[in-house]
Parts: sequence; C-alpha cells; structure tokens
Amino acid sequence: MNFCSDNVTGVAPEIMAALTTANETIAAMPYGDDPWTGRLDGLFSEIFEREVAVFPVATGTAANVLGLALFTPPYGAIYCHTDSHIVVDECGAPELYTGGAKLVDLPGADGKLSAGDLDAAIGAAGAGDVHHVQPAAISITQATEAGTVYSLDEVAAIGEVANKYGLALHMDGARFANAVAGLGCTPAATTWQAGVDVLAFGATKNGALAAEAVVFFDPARAETFGYRRKRGGHLFSKMRFLSAQLEAYVSDGLWLDNARHANAMATRLGAGLAAVDGVRLLYPVDANVFFVEMPRAIADGLEADGFRFYRMKDNGRTTVRLVTAFNTRVEDVDGFVASAASHGAGARRA
Amino acid sequence: MNFCSDNVTGVAPEIMAALTTANETIAAMPYGDDPWTGRLDGLFSEIFEREVAVFPVATGTAANVLGLALFTPPYGAIYCHTDSHIVVDECGAPELYTGGAKLVDLPGADGKLSAGDLDAAIGAAGAGDVHHVQPAAISITQATEAGTVYSLDEVAAIGEVANKYGLALHMDGARFANAVAGLGCTPAATTWQAGVDVLAFGATKNGALAAEAVVFFDPARAETFGYRRKRGGHLFSKMRFLSAQLEAYVSDGLWLDNARHANAMATRLGAGLAAVDGVRLLYPVDANVFFVEMPRAIADGLEADGFRFYRMKDNGRTTVRLVTAFNTRVEDVDGFVASAASHGAGARRA
Amino acid sequence: MNFCSDNVTGVAPEIMAALTTANETIAAMPYGDDPWTGRLDGLFSEIFEREVAVFPVATGTAANVLGLALFTPPYGAIYCHTDSHIVVDECGAPELYTGGAKLVDLPGADGKLSAGDLDAAIGAAGAGDVHHVQPAAISITQATEAGTVYSLDEVAAIGEVANKYGLALHMDGARFANAVAGLGCTPAATTWQAGVDVLAFGATKNGALAAEAVVFFDPARAETFGYRRKRGGHLFSKMRFLSAQLEAYVSDGLWLDNARHANAMATRLGAGLAAVDGVRLLYPVDANVFFVEMPRAIADGLEADGFRFYRMKDNGRTTVRLVTAFNTRVEDVDGFVASAASHGAGARRA
Amino acid sequence: MNFCSDNVTGVAPEIMAALTTANETIAAMPYGDDPWTGRLDGLFSEIFEREVAVFPVATGTAANVLGLALFTPPYGAIYCHTDSHIVVDECGAPELYTGGAKLVDLPGADGKLSAGDLDAAIGAAGAGDVHHVQPAAISITQATEAGTVYSLDEVAAIGEVANKYGLALHMDGARFANAVAGLGCTPAATTWQAGVDVLAFGATKNGALAAEAVVFFDPARAETFGYRRKRGGHLFSKMRFLSAQLEAYVSDGLWLDNARHANAMATRLGAGLAAVDGVRLLYPVDANVFFVEMPRAIADGLEADGFRFYRMKDNGRTTVRLVTAFNTRVEDVDGFVASAASHGAGARRA
Repeated sequence: MNFCSDNVTGVAPEIMAALTTANETIAAMPYGDDPWTGRLDGLFSEIFEREVAVFPVATGTAANVLGLALFTPPYGAIYCHTDSHIVVDECGAPELYTGGAKLVDLPGADGKLSAGDLDAAIGAAGAGDVHHVQPAAISITQATEAGTVYSLDEVAAIGEVANKYGLALHMDGARFANAVAGLGCTPAATTWQAGVDVLAFGATKNGALAAEAVVFFDPARAETFGYRRKRGGHLFSKMRFLSAQLEAYVSDGLWLDNARHANAMATRLGAGLAAVDGVRLLYPVDANVFFVEMPRAIADGLEADGFRFYRMKDNGRTTVRLVTAFNTRVEDVDGFVASAASHGAGARRA
Repeated sequence: MNFCSDNVTGVAPEIMAALTTANETIAAMPYGDDPWTGRLDGLFSEIFEREVAVFPVATGTAANVLGLALFTPPYGAIYCHTDSHIVVDECGAPELYTGGAKLVDLPGADGKLSAGDLDAAIGAAGAGDVHHVQPAAISITQATEAGTVYSLDEVAAIGEVANKYGLALHMDGARFANAVAGLGCTPAATTWQAGVDVLAFGATKNGALAAEAVVFFDPARAETFGYRRKRGGHLFSKMRFLSAQLEAYVSDGLWLDNARHANAMATRLGAGLAAVDGVRLLYPVDANVFFVEMPRAIADGLEADGFRFYRMKDNGRTTVRLVTAFNTRVEDVDGFVASAASHGAGARRA
Repeated sequence: MNFCSDNVTGVAPEIMAALTTANETIAAMPYGDDPWTGRLDGLFSEIFEREVAVFPVATGTAANVLGLALFTPPYGAIYCHTDSHIVVDECGAPELYTGGAKLVDLPGADGKLSAGDLDAAIGAAGAGDVHHVQPAAISITQATEAGTVYSLDEVAAIGEVANKYGLALHMDGARFANAVAGLGCTPAATTWQAGVDVLAFGATKNGALAAEAVVFFDPARAETFGYRRKRGGHLFSKMRFLSAQLEAYVSDGLWLDNARHANAMATRLGAGLAAVDGVRLLYPVDANVFFVEMPRAIADGLEADGFRFYRMKDNGRTTVRLVTAFNTRVEDVDGFVASAASHGAGARRA
Repeated sequence: MNFCSDNVTGVAPEIMAALTTANETIAAMPYGDDPWTGRLDGLFSEIFEREVAVFPVATGTAANVLGLALFTPPYGAIYCHTDSHIVVDECGAPELYTGGAKLVDLPGADGKLSAGDLDAAIGAAGAGDVHHVQPAAISITQATEAGTVYSLDEVAAIGEVANKYGLALHMDGARFANAVAGLGCTPAATTWQAGVDVLAFGATKNGALAAEAVVFFDPARAETFGYRRKRGGHLFSKMRFLSAQLEAYVSDGLWLDNARHANAMATRLGAGLAAVDGVRLLYPVDANVFFVEMPRAIADGLEADGFRFYRMKDNGRTTVRLVTAFNTRVEDVDGFVASAASHGAGARRA
C-alpha cells in the first residue's frame, strides 16, 4: 500500500527469471563482450524501427547525463523544464558529466516545456557571443515529473525548435514506457520521428532491478559514449546482468504490459479520488503519476490507515503525489479510494 | 575453463538467494532508506572492529574514485603505482571525480609501492608551492594488480608515510577478500590498524552481481559522500538490491570462504604450472591472480584446448595472466596444468 | 563620445605612471614575491579597517569565480540575481572554477536580490538531501548590472540570510568604487560589516589597465586561493605590474575620486536626459551606469551625431544603456543631452 | 644581477612605449573589438607564412592549457616530457581546462622527448579500448625546460608520430623566440612545417609586461577558443593593451632581437663558466637558459657577491639554473664569471 514512487517496487518476475537464467552460464566475457549485450542493438533497433546504438547503465541519472554529455560542450547550455529531474534531483550530475555546462530552466504548464517558450529563450541566448554559454541541447521528460505526457505534436514542435537552432534533443524517459502506453503510439513516433536524438530509456521504475538504456538514434553520434561511461564509473564488469534485464524487459512486450497496468491503476485511482468530496486532480492523469489536492484530514486519515505517499505542500489543503506501478494491486487502489472517502467531509458529516 | 578474470563469473548462489529474498518484500523505500542498507554500517563495523561508515556502489571504479574524491582537492595529487587500476584502467575517472587532480604514479617491484619511494617522491613534491599540485592521498591496491599482497608491515610503513605528510591512505580492495584470506589476518589489521582511511571493498569479483562498498574508517570524514555519489549517478533507487548482495556477502563468512577457495585454486594452478618445463611464475602467488611466462607453443596449445586467459606480451615467450575465482573447479585447474604439460618442450620431445 | 561601457576607457594617468615607475626596477622576483605585492595586504587592510587577504588578478571574471570557488563545493549552489554577470556574461566560468556548482538565479526589482526572496528560496532548497545541490553561497553585485546600489541595510539583510543558513556571501564589485562613492559610506560598511565574506574588488573599469583584487575578510578562509589561482592560469609572473596598478589605484584616494567623477557625470547625464521630452529613466541613477527608454528617433539621432552606446531593446521605443567613466568629459555629457533634445519630439515639432 | 629567470625582468622600452601610445586613444571597444587586436591575425600570418588564428592571453599557463583544451577530450591523454611546465609547474591547469585529461609524461635526454619513445608509448596506449584514456595530443616545449632546443628534424620526427596516430601537436613556446633565434630558422620551419598544430607563443619572458599568443595553424580548428578563453576568465576587457604589447613585440623584429641578445648572453656566460675549474655545463647552451654543476663553495660565493639564481640540488656539488634575458648586461655576465672564478678551487688554492 505504498504509493510513494514506482521505485519502491522490487523486480518483475520475468526479469528476475532472466537474471537467474543469465547466471547459469558459468563464464561470460566482461564489460559488454557477452551475448546478452550483443543482442541489445538489434532488439532496440527493432523496437524503434531504425538502427540505433544502445548502452546499458544502471541508474536514471547516469542515463540522462551520459546522454547529454555527448551533445553539450562545457561552455554549452541545456534548455529544460524548471521541475525536471536533471535540474532538481541529480545533485549537479549534468554539470559534472558535461564539464560544467549550464542548465537553463524554463517554467511551463502541466510540467511541459512549450516550443514557443524554447524558441524565444534560445533565440535570445546570444549564440556566437563568447560572453554567453552556447545553446547546445534541449531536454524534455516523457512522461513529465507532473505525470503528464507530451503529445506527438508537442514533441515534434520542440524537435523543430531544436532543429532550427542546431541543438540536440534529449528525452528523459525514466517513465518512457508509461508515456508510450499512455499515448498508444509507437516508440518511434514520440522519439526520433519527432526529432529526439537521444533517449534515456528507463526500466528500473517499471520492473527492472537496476537497468536503463541510453539510446542514440544516430549511432554515429554515440562514438565517444564508451569512454564517457567508463570514466563515470558506469561500465559494469558483469554486464550480462544489466543486459539480461533489458532483454527481458523489452521482450514479449513486458515493458508495455507493465506500463499499461501501472497507467490503468493510476487512472482508476485518479477517477476514484476525483469523485471524493474535496479532492481535486492537479493535472491530467496521462500515465502512472499524478498529483491531487485534498483536505489535510483526508491525507492524515489515509496515513493512519497505512497508506504511504509523498506530501508536497501542506497548508490547510495538502498536495499529494501518487504513483502506481507494474505491481500495484486493484484492491489497494480501491482501498485507497475508500479510505479517502471515509475521511472526507461527506463522511465526517454523515 | 575461463581464467581471464574473476569478473567472468556469475553470482554466487548465496547472493542470488539474497536477491530473491529481498524481492519478496513488496515495497521498500528507495535510495537507501530500506532495512538492508540500514544494517550495513553495523555489519561492517563488526567486521572491521570499529565504527565505520559504509556506502554501497555498483562498480569498482565508482568505489575507488568516490573514496578518493573526498580526500583530494582538484589541485591535489594522488600517489599510486604505475600499474594500478586507477592509473591504467579507469579512463580518467579519478580525474573526473576529483575535479582534475593528478595521479602521480611510481613504479615498484611485485606491483607494490614502497614506503621509501613514496617518502622520497612526496618529500620532493613541493608542498606549499602554488606551482605544483599538492600531495593529498596515497592509493595502494590490496591485492595488487600483479596478484601480490602487501604484508601488514608494508602497509603500515606506507601508512606512516601518509601520516608523516598528512595525506589520506586509500586502498583499492577490488580483491580485498583474497588479500585478507591470503594474509590470514583480520580485516582491521591490513586497513585502519595500518593507517588506511578509506577502502574500496570489492564484492563483484568474488561472487556478487554488482556490488562494492566504500568503507570510511572515520565516519566523520565521509560527510559529503552522499552528495558526491548522487552527482556521479551512483545512488541506486532500488538500493536494497545492492545492500542485500553486500549483506549476504559478508554474512556467515561467505566473502572469505569464496576468497579462500579462489586463492587455493590459484596456488594449485601456480604450483602445477611451475612444475611444467619452461614455465616460470613472475611473482609470488599471494592471492587469486598470477602471471606466468611460458613458451608461446604452450599458450597456443592451451587455447587450442579451449582454455581462455589474457596474453600480455607475446615475443617468443608469452606472458599470461591467470585468474581463479570463487567458482573455479579443481578439475579445470588440473586440466589446465595437464594441457600445459602436454604442449611443453618435454612433451613435444617425447 | 563613447558611452558603451567604462571598459572602453584606457588607463588613468596615475596608474600608467605607476607602471612606468615599477618598470624602473631592473629585476623583481616573480609570482608575487615582489615589494609591490608585498604591500597590498597592508594597504587593503587599512582601507577595509580590518585584516584582509588580498590577491591580484587581471579580469573581473577571474576575480568573481576564484572567490566563489573557495566557498562552493562542486555539489553546491550559488544564489544570485538573474541578470548578474556570473549568470549571464561569464560563459560558464563559475561552473568551471567550482567544478560544476549550480547558479540558482532569482529575479529582483532594480537589479537587486531581496533578502526575503533569498530566504524563501534557500529555505526550500532541500539542504541535507543528497538529491539536491546544496546551498553554499550568495552572490550580489555592488553596484548592480542595473546600475543601482544596494543600501547598507539591504546588504546587511542579505548578510543575515547568508548567516542564517551558513552560506558565504560574495560580492561582485566590478564597480565597487562607484557603489562606495554613491553610498558615501566606508568600504567596510557595505562589505564585511554587512556580512560579506569575499569581494571581487574591481579596478579595471575605473582606471586600471587590467587589475582586480580578490579580498577575503577572513584571511584563514583564503588558504587554498593560491593553488586555485595558479591552476586557473591567473598567477602572473611579472606580478609587480598588477600590484603596482592596484597600489596606485587605492593610494591617495584615486579609486574614489575616479568613481565620484564617473558618478557625477552619470547624474548630470541622467538629469539632462530626464528633462528631454519622451525620455524616461528606468532605474535610479545610483552610480555610473543607467538605462533610459527613448523614442527610437532620438537613439538614431544620437548615433548619427557620433555618440556610441548599447541599445538593448528596440521595439518602437528603444532601451539604451549609458555608462560614464573616470575620464568622461562634461562637454561630452552636455553634448549628448543637447543631441538627444535636438532629436526629440519637441525639437521636431519646433 | 639576477639570473633567476627571465621573468624577473620588466618591460622592454619598445613595448612600454606601445602601451603608452595605445593609451592615447580615448575609447576603444572592449574584448578584442579594437584595431590593435584586429591587426594581429595579419601580423602573425605574415610571420608564420600562412594564415593563422591568433588569440592574446596574459599568462603562459593560460596559453598552454587553452591551446591544449581544444584538442583534448576529457578522456584524452597528452604525451609530454616529465620535466615539462604543464606537468610540473601549472598546478593542474591542464586537467582543469581539459576537464580532466591525463598527462602521460615520458623522460628524455636533454629535456627533449624522442619520437621513438613517443611512438612506443602511444602505440601501447590502448587506443579504442574504453578502459584507457585515449591519446589526443603531444606537447613539446621549444626551447625546453633544460634550455635545449629541438632541431628541425627532431620536431618533424615528432610531428610524424602525431600524424601517424592522428594526434594534435602542441608546442609550449614560452621561450619560442629564443628557440627560433637559436636555430636561426624561420618561425614556420619549427612549427607548422614540422607538424605543429598549436603554439603557445611567449612574449612575457622576452620583454612584454604580460602577453602571450595562442597561434592555431589551422584557423578552422580554433572555432571554440573564444568560449573557452572566456570561461577561463582570460578574455580581457581592455584587450588593446594585450594586443599592443604583441604588436610591438613582433614588429621590427623586436622579438628576435631581444632573444638573440639573451641567447648571446647565455652563450657568453656558459662559455665563461665552463672555463672555471670545477664547473660543468649539464646541457648544451642552445638558448637563454642553462644548468651548471659547481662546487657548493662557488655557489655560496656567488650569492655572497650579490648574484641571484636558483639552486636545484645541493649535495656537495650544487646544480644551478642560470637564465639570461633581453636586458641582461654584459658587465653582469662577466662579473658573474669573475665571481665564480674567484670562489673556485683554483682561486682558493692561489
């Protein structure tokens, strides 16, 4: 009954089974020179309907910043949302891996950057003037930190801005599966077909033990990735165990099945709560994360009933973040709604 | 029959079992706020017979450079062996994590630094002179890249040099278990009791999937570790799975049992090969890695028989690195020796 | 007739004379081991009424970022104004010198940060949480990029915020002389007495060839400055020529005399322009830089008459930055006003 | 009577005059948008007999490391001499400016790298293997720290090694004028015609106040220099005063005249000392720096007579570095020799 995050979950059974299987091989050459890793480029190229270069890493932060580092010189600027993970939650990792580039953050409704705002900001940035950091990349998060999902048109419009200024477009896809499931589109449609150059393809939150893939849609631009990953300390000796997770994750549709379940649980939870007196959804429920505002009494009551979640603000009314996952149970969702209802104003009046 | 490295191995069954058990818990708070991680400080404090601060990471490079980063300013110098992993095999990770510190490497017999050479080099380094990088740390590897093990006195002598100049003493313990098993000493004796300030305590090569621990013998000096680990992208969301590996590894003596087995296999293999005509051990066999020089014909013959190992130099005579591990089988060791003997000069003459 | 910036000026005669005199000495030991540099600590300690540590550098950017680097770890955050030089005009130098710290910029009226906004932002920053960069310093500019000057109370209020959170307070004093002259206060009053820890004390814009001083109000905290300056490439071999500039600059009140003249010219220019029909001052004229909005016809006319200045925005009405300096001539100021008036609406109507 | 270094000197009269003249212009646009700077590319292109891109900076360290930074990725390696300035005397500046590249230093007779040693080291470096830093540049010093000068053939042979491996060739020319004067060659012959890609062209030691030029022999490769210089804090606002120094320095042959004088004084001093009983030259006197070994009594006697110089080692016999400069006087040279002779064994016996 923990709705704090999708990273409170353990490992999906299919992925745990893949680890066990991979362990049956007595010896495998290290650092990616193993059959599991060898299969990844092909698997991901199929999923994305074009030749891609894929590199496994173990954390979302590593995936994000290693991807960005290839496109951003130390005097460069990365345009991103004020609430994005790279700005708020990575303790300066983008600056470390780029050698000191600047994150230029912009606000935006529903956790999304708008193409117009980006165009205006980049256009005024002073490209070519040595006094100013130079626009190098745009980073968007799909699904966003607000739990919303960029439409295909929204991504494409941002892709056009990137193209206009010759910038790279990076996508933080910690919850990429949830976004694709939410959009009902192909993985290609919301990435390279919309102008994305590099994707941090998340798996950990959606069932892996610790595995993410950095996907470059133009393999030629990934040339120096290996060196940068190694010097970041992110090259695993027993790489087969990262690759086996990713292989299981993208095989047989597991990644989308898991995401669809998580999204469905969020939709159910959101709908249930929206019907509770005094509870208000702050953003659309596009994926598996959403925010609701509720009377503090309800939040307190839910906690008293054993439910866990993050409380963001707490001034009379409480803002709460709720996250569902691949293993969220229907009965816990329904129990949450029932608990909320039981602590609401209507209930208290009754 | 792969003797290339101890990282070609998979996961020890006890550790795989621990992962499976950890996965039975539906939800655990992320980023180390889980019971497995919560137990580590206590476990390691017991093993090292003093209060320590322990931080799990997933790669040896990360363990090394995060440990060094806390003691080395960007204008600092780290004294280390010319063949050390941080110099040769980390693609600049120490420089990245320290913000540009310099590795000052010194040669040394048997893969070891000598206290006297260190004293001379550091004494001549120009401490206090702004033109020169400033001595900040000494790093030694236990067991070394040559497969040798520093005696307690050798470490203590280096500890005294570190102390004399006010430097930190770092130990790369990727094969720490093998060193302790080889020495037959307590873990305390070859670390803090000899002046070591921070240890990269390896587990991956000795049975873990991907887990290392950075151990600070003065917890007060570890204060900024958390920030540095996070900005390196090395803070795992599902941390329980790192910690569970480490817990299983240090419980019930698994780490030392595994190391003793690996060492015994190396001793057996070394003794067997030394008896083969034309084969010569280059260093003492102190742990689970060793180097032999052999006629090229033997090396070729071994490979033809399906044995794998690294060939370092190949000019008439061949230098070969051999590594045994927790799961090396006696029959493979004996088979290796028999194969070598069968391809040797004596055999060919016969 | 160039009002673009105070850095279009040459060298004040007193400072050029000091360079000539310094050159009469055949040999002086390099890197600051010369008599001129030897006198600086004493001179600045007198000016600031306490013992300070002073380090000459040659550019304002170097002065700013070397000062900040001593107080900001690579995972740190520096709070500063959105329009500050370190954010806008240093192409990432603060990130380079701190090893990747983040500038957290806040807007603020009249180019100033407010203590309240800082308090709120720092209070919400997540100190102690490893996911977030850690508040380390506040940087304010005195006089500001808007040409305004913080009052003593305004600085002191910010000093209290810095103190409340244990942060360092840095002052970018590229136009510090103009600020002190404008306030009519002691140099101590607007710096350490108000909580400032380190000052980038500018001289270049106010008559030096290329000289700035980094002033630490607690010499003990400057310990590592020398190493950081050297590795930045900012330690001059013929240091006497930096120090001689600074010595002449702060001797006999030259720095304040020059600043008073520049400020007086700005006041005269501002008052003259404010009386021109259609011209509007955007901020108070507190020092030697100010901004006016005028009809485009006036801006065009001024340029046609040979006056130079920066045009910031140009949409019907034009925003213009005007800067006076130690060598601005009264006749050029009056000529500027007359030209503006001659191109104004009233003039055209006449 | 100071033979410590050529940086104990002041400013050559022609350069001081140029500064005075440059100061007669009331206003010049900042940051290099001035006529003096505008003329530099043309002047240097003429001197080097091809189109070059020139960037003024103020220190030799800045010139070296900014030049290197353009050719060396953070995971790169720079091959250089063990005694080179970038290794020994820049407190980690190359690491800072490259973002953490590694200096791989090699010994070499007479302060010089040999092409053969470089070829062997680079060939064994593991290019393409992600575990190892990647060879990116070779740096040589002309004249060397030992005071010797590479012959044209020696540079060309190194240039061929650079070319063979696709590395950049950097030349630290802090004493480039002395080298060219010593070789009696064209500036082109010992630089781009021998394979040099970027030159740190020194002026400070040879008569400037503080001015060096970074010269790129392929202007297209200098594209990002401006950003890197600015973020290093090395872009001067009153740039005309750097450029005016460089203009005077390379006009009318001043740079070579000054160097020829310094070299002649060194030759005279070397010859005089070599004739003193018990004094031995350690390297050929190719330029204006040389090392002699002498009985400690002579070194002591010279100091007692008021001569200043650096003592490098002092164990019975003393190693002394002697440096002459553009303003060294014949009488001081002869006086030095006479003093040495008067304290020598022969004199004492007399």
